[in-house]
Amino acid sequence: MSRKRVVIVGGVAGGATCAARLRRMDENAEILLLDRGPYVSFANCGLPYYVGNVIHDEAKLLLATPALFRERFNIEVRTCNEVVSIDRAARTIAVHDLDTGREYREHYDALVLSPGSAPVRPPCCGIDLPGIFTLRSIPDSREIRTWIDSKDPRKAVVVGGGFIGLEMAENLAHRGIAVTIVELADQIMPPLDREMAEYAREQLIARGIRLRMGDGVASFEQPPSGGLIVRTQGGAALDADIVVLAIGVRPEAKLAREAGLEIGRRGGIRVDSRMRTSDPHIWAVGDAVEVQNRLTGQWELIPLAGPANRQGRVAADTICGRDAEFDGVLATAVCGFFGLTVALTGATEKCLRRAGIDDFQCVYLHPNQHVSYYPGAHPIHIKLVFRKSDGRVLGAQAIGEADVARRIDVIATAIQMNATVFDLENAELCYAPQFGAAKDAVNLAGMAAANVLRGDVALAPWQELDDTDAYIVDVREPHEFHRDSVDGAVNIPLGQLRSKMAGLPHDREIWVSCGIGQRAYYACRILTQHGFRARSLSGGYQTYRVMYPLE
Amino acid sequence: MSRKRVVIVGGVAGGATCAARLRRMDENAEILLLDRGPYVSFANCGLPYYVGNVIHDEAKLLLATPALFRERFNIEVRTCNEVVSIDRAARTIAVHDLDTGREYREHYDALVLSPGSAPVRPPCCGIDLPGIFTLRSIPDSREIRTWIDSKDPRKAVVVGGGFIGLEMAENLAHRGIAVTIVELADQIMPPLDREMAEYAREQLIARGIRLRMGDGVASFEQPPSGGLIVRTQGGAALDADIVVLAIGVRPEAKLAREAGLEIGRRGGIRVDSRMRTSDPHIWAVGDAVEVQNRLTGQWELIPLAGPANRQGRVAADTICGRDAEFDGVLATAVCGFFGLTVALTGATEKCLRRAGIDDFQCVYLHPNQHVSYYPGAHPIHIKLVFRKSDGRVLGAQAIGEADVARRIDVIATAIQMNATVFDLENAELCYAPQFGAAKDAVNLAGMAAANVLRGDVALAPWQELDDTDAYIVDVREPHEFHRDSVDGAVNIPLGQLRSKMAGLPHDREIWVSCGIGQRAYYACRILTQHGFRARSLSGGYQTYRVMYPLE
Repeated sequence: MSRKRVVIVGGVAGGATCAARLRRMDENAEILLLDRGPYVSFANCGLPYYVGNVIHDEAKLLLATPALFRERFNIEVRTCNEVVSIDRAARTIAVHDLDTGREYREHYDALVLSPGSAPVRPPCCGIDLPGIFTLRSIPDSREIRTWIDSKDPRKAVVVGGGFIGLEMAENLAHRGIAVTIVELADQIMPPLDREMAEYAREQLIARGIRLRMGDGVASFEQPPSGGLIVRTQGGAALDADIVVLAIGVRPEAKLAREAGLEIGRRGGIRVDSRMRTSDPHIWAVGDAVEVQNRLTGQWELIPLAGPANRQGRVAADTICGRDAEFDGVLATAVCGFFGLTVALTGATEKCLRRAGIDDFQCVYLHPNQHVSYYPGAHPIHIKLVFRKSDGRVLGAQAIGEADVARRIDVIATAIQMNATVFDLENAELCYAPQFGAAKDAVNLAGMAAANVLRGDVALAPWQELDDTDAYIVDVREPHEFHRDSVDGAVNIPLGQLRSKMAGLPHDREIWVSCGIGQRAYYACRILTQHGFRARSLSGGYQTYRVMYPLE
Repeated sequence: MSRKRVVIVGGVAGGATCAARLRRMDENAEILLLDRGPYVSFANCGLPYYVGNVIHDEAKLLLATPALFRERFNIEVRTCNEVVSIDRAARTIAVHDLDTGREYREHYDALVLSPGSAPVRPPCCGIDLPGIFTLRSIPDSREIRTWIDSKDPRKAVVVGGGFIGLEMAENLAHRGIAVTIVELADQIMPPLDREMAEYAREQLIARGIRLRMGDGVASFEQPPSGGLIVRTQGGAALDADIVVLAIGVRPEAKLAREAGLEIGRRGGIRVDSRMRTSDPHIWAVGDAVEVQNRLTGQWELIPLAGPANRQGRVAADTICGRDAEFDGVLATAVCGFFGLTVALTGATEKCLRRAGIDDFQCVYLHPNQHVSYYPGAHPIHIKLVFRKSDGRVLGAQAIGEADVARRIDVIATAIQMNATVFDLENAELCYAPQFGAAKDAVNLAGMAAANVLRGDVALAPWQELDDTDAYIVDVREPHEFHRDSVDGAVNIPLGQLRSKMAGLPHDREIWVSCGIGQRAYYACRILTQHGFRARSLSGGYQTYRVMYPLE
């Protein structure tokens, strides 16, 4: 029996997983893992926390060393060896040994590409000045740490308000540096719907982070006095002692493209459900491939470690002749900064619209992570997206201080299993006072959506608040109402609604608001049963304030 | 249109939910809520924490007052009114007003019984001595607080090591009282499988709680010197300044039984899936009813707030002519004490055996709640139970310091949706270093089980370790092996296995152990592919030490 020779290009996440899985499945295979960097299997998600000195010890970032691969898995690892081309006809690759300069060829029976993605560097003037960093590798994070330790920077500009940008902002702040984030879009955290990102934005501001929204970087300058000046497209000049670029990543598809493998429209390597490229002897996994979104069917770039690992396993299994399939992504993601957790799974409103899907509806709610009578209750702001025609859960976004990932994990599992909002209503989840509520946040999300689908309450669209001629009633108590309320609203506390109903119009819709949407729902039930055309403003004032932010 | 008259007996959890839901569904119904206690809709799950002064303010325990029911829901509430009998033919109830002593009758179109459950009081000598308490109501918890505040007790005996007993133990300890728990069974937390309860037991002992297992209370005495003496069946005499009985609850089914309603074998009121009793005009919800376990089909008593709430909604909907069904329980539960979280969902091994089901298998694992390179990683001890024939997830138990409820909630959702262990493998959950791992604990549980079902690894049964003639190999490093290991094991570190394989027997099974089961799995893959008959001891040393505790 001849030994199968598998060569894997790129030894982080998907590549490393694939290698280890291959060995477990086939003790006989010859496995060679090549990486152009000095390390394999390192914790790239941990890099911002190494910069922030939350993780003190660089060695902790190394999940597996070449020695461990050799000893435990009988896998040969060559770091600082870059694969420069693929000869698909001959099934060989050309490798450049970066230490010695030697070029050599290696034969493969199966080739797995796991090259990852590279941080985008805008072609701005001054982009290569010292003090401007991107963060992808252990050497990158070491350089940033060294810069911080030696230069003691006071001011940082983080370019990009995505997940990595916010993690970097937190970690730089943790090092005592004043941080300004510059974000080209009109919101931070682009995967989120805009109004949900507002909750994160207000928390960032509250923690002293400066935000410059809707503005991009134009150029970088090094004044004679030292430091850096970041000039923005909007005309601002920001002082910085350090700049971190976090404006996204781009799939490393050059090798695949030059080898003539099919590349998708988003620039990632195109693979089938077995992670096979357009060449039957070549697989690809991780950040460099395009994946199909399970909710929209769209091809996307989803640079996340979880899917990369699953893909690595699928590639290994297929190479070993097993039946395995990668069934697309929900794009479940989480990000923590300054005690806040932001998480999402499945489709957002914006990604459904982008995909041309309009059979959906959203509800907003703001339950506490556990019963409010137990100390330490904090609200979780939730947006649940579901299919109008059959109640299928399509996605959820959540932001709060505690137990946010838990709720998104539950909803991710529900989406994976094709659950409906009615299933969420009935989910039987952990409850004790410090852990949740008899009606958990997830149950409440399901109930809010199910109430709409069953016709028990109609929602008024926040987006039409400016244009409606509806009669707006705020059913909170006067002391709540007088602090702030929906523009033009009349205050009728819920407890007085039955007695004051006579004064309400029958010829106009009545839109009802409250604090978080619960009392408005009760009010709508009362009004509807008394013949009024009532609708609830979903999520109440807590949603209003981010739909119509003051600034 | 005549108004429907609905009378609800019992105003906590299920009863209160039912009342509020009824009003939302039917603005016209006449709704009367009766409770023999002085409060409705109070937070009974919060009572131990009020005793412990974690919740300072008694008013916080009142989730809704009679005034709120009247004002917001137009529901009449009568507290301190006990329903003493039901005349089913006349559709009336006899009510005893406990304040005035008056007896009166009320007519109903629909009657909902939500009487709850009562703490079991063993018929021991001395059971009524002062200083011996049970905990069911706000007045109960107030009495215990007063006792603690005025008597300054130094020693407490908690009778019963179930969820409530452990919550009481924590809260008494929190008040500075030395606690001894007396538990008749050979394990604490009876819903758990015994070996899983061991992890909780060792933590309790580490936190200074004294445990007296396999021993019951015989009698209580009040010595002339003051205080109490708790005499156990095993002959011990324990000093106590306060005793809390937490040996379980019994459904309050007397009213239903005397009315001739069908009672189940466990002593609870029998209802159909619409929460209707054997009388079509009477519904019952909450702790007093028997519910069907969704995994075993067995009728059980599950005194939990989540199911009670769902049942209240189902009863209300059915009464209003809607189609709603209660689909049984997974018995998801959680308990926190001394920084530890214990949670479970679905079937345990013991409940499957009790139901005569043997088409199942278990895996043990001990992943951290998040990546180990991020500070603050703690293991979660997990037992996953799944169906052997098709991989359906049947249940899970988990114990650890952080993010335990999250994993059990995910698995509960998976069970609800009929997921298999293969679905758990592929679950796409939240990952960032402080929140999880690219392979989350839930993924790992699915993988461990799927590896067994796919035949990639065979598990050796821990229970047969004493009797086997298998060759036991421990593949940990020598420094781990020498601290402690499975009796009779030979040490061959995983990295040396390929080179030392020649010395292993081909005529005997090889059972492989390690720290948590991961290296043993790798070793089994190697050995099996080289023709050995190898099996893995699931969960490794971390499971061994609770399977074979030292005492």
